[in-house]
Amino acid sequence: MFDVKKTTEEIIKFIRNYYKENNLKGAVIGISGGKDSAVVAGLFARAIGPENIQGLWMPCHSKENDKKNAYLVAKHFGFNIKEVDLTNIYDNYVDNIKNIYPNIKDENLTDANINIKPRLRTATLYYNAAMLSNIKGGTYIVPGTSNACELYVGYFTKGGDNVSDIMVLGDLSVREVIEIGKYISVPNQVVNKAPDDGLSGLTDEEKLGVKYDDIENVIKGKYVDNDVKEKIMALHKINQHKFKTPMYKRK
Amino acid sequence: MFDVKKTTEEIIKFIRNYYKENNLKGAVIGISGGKDSAVVAGLFARAIGPENIQGLWMPCHSKENDKKNAYLVAKHFGFNIKEVDLTNIYDNYVDNIKNIYPNIKDENLTDANINIKPRLRTATLYYNAAMLSNIKGGTYIVPGTSNACELYVGYFTKGGDNVSDIMVLGDLSVREVIEIGKYISVPNQVVNKAPDDGLSGLTDEEKLGVKYDDIENVIKGKYVDNDVKEKIMALHKINQHKFKTPMYKRK
Repeated sequence: MFDVKKTTEEIIKFIRNYYKENNLKGAVIGISGGKDSAVVAGLFARAIGPENIQGLWMPCHSKENDKKNAYLVAKHFGFNIKEVDLTNIYDNYVDNIKNIYPNIKDENLTDANINIKPRLRTATLYYNAAMLSNIKGGTYIVPGTSNACELYVGYFTKGGDNVSDIMVLGDLSVREVIEIGKYISVPNQVVNKAPDDGLSGLTDEEKLGVKYDDIENVIKGKYVDNDVKEKIMALHKINQHKFKTPMYKRK
Repeated sequence: MFDVKKTTEEIIKFIRNYYKENNLKGAVIGISGGKDSAVVAGLFARAIGPENIQGLWMPCHSKENDKKNAYLVAKHFGFNIKEVDLTNIYDNYVDNIKNIYPNIKDENLTDANINIKPRLRTATLYYNAAMLSNIKGGTYIVPGTSNACELYVGYFTKGGDNVSDIMVLGDLSVREVIEIGKYISVPNQVVNKAPDDGLSGLTDEEKLGVKYDDIENVIKGKYVDNDVKEKIMALHKINQHKFKTPMYKRK
């Protein structure tokens, strides 16, 4: 049985202890308008105070509605949010590549284009964290927003959204993250929104081809239809390389 | 006693096995003009053939001499190299931030500016790998270039040059990498060059404040002056967070 109150309090204590032990000051959090970043921001606002959080809305050909939700989250939890528009940087980046490979077609760039966005965003979070650490006279770090279901099937961009300094949702299923979101009163339209990457135009579940509740059941050893289980295990297996880089070791 | 011939052959076999097991085709390698990337490229050229290697020279306010050395390495090992100039993207990136924080001074951005470069480079390597995988009909991966001494003291950018798909120098000291470089005939002016990051204007050893040979001796449990050893252990300890991200786990 998931005890939402107890877990929320434990996470807040976990964050406070880590900040105290390492003498840290603040956090830079990418606010996407989705529930994971909203829950992380809400937990950090309680743990270290909203005045020590810098939210970043980092559009990159993004939807206007996501922006509205991102600013709503910041207002609700009382932290500052700034827009760092990556659209031009992204466009220049892609144009640059097209100049170097003159025969390249747009269809050859689909996969490359999807993954460059989270990498630019992570670089931007760390850029702002380094800058704020310098200005504010105390270290700012970058919390990650991945949950246990995403981690289990490797649903993240290597060198992108899997790079962070502290993870608070990594042991929680999507369902449990939503419960915490409701408990800390993340706005309804954010916590109930079907999760999507804001990149491909599909929801996460459409893109993955499996449901988050089924992933949770696999993780917890509960009953899952055999075909679905095989699909989830295949994703789990094929993405293991994202967790551990093979390295030559002398005999 | 370091057996350069045996180690070189083992690494080449390690690469070949990994490519075979995972049905891979090629490699995208950032060629900096320094010895680590030259040795990695030379080993991969032998293991998978130079026709399956795409070298990238990614200047970002870089020195002309480094470019000469990068192209010399590519020519020597017979693989194609392309220039992806990140200078404009970097400049736009920094200008973008300055517009958002109008009171920011250049001195507040020093640390942030040093680390953004390797992150842009890593994103570029993966971008090209995804694109080439699409065009060439087989998977291209990104080899890492970190050696054991750099790893021991955490001398790399998190989310930058520590992100890779396969590591071949991670168990070798700087001295051993140089031995391999000489053995596979990396051009003299590259293999004998004092390693620097091409970013800060200092050599690595100046920046770290310790010598790579001393780091090797600490790793191998050999005698090192006490003050030097303390300095190395302090670097080792303070950078452990780059290896493992702390994560909340329910009790």
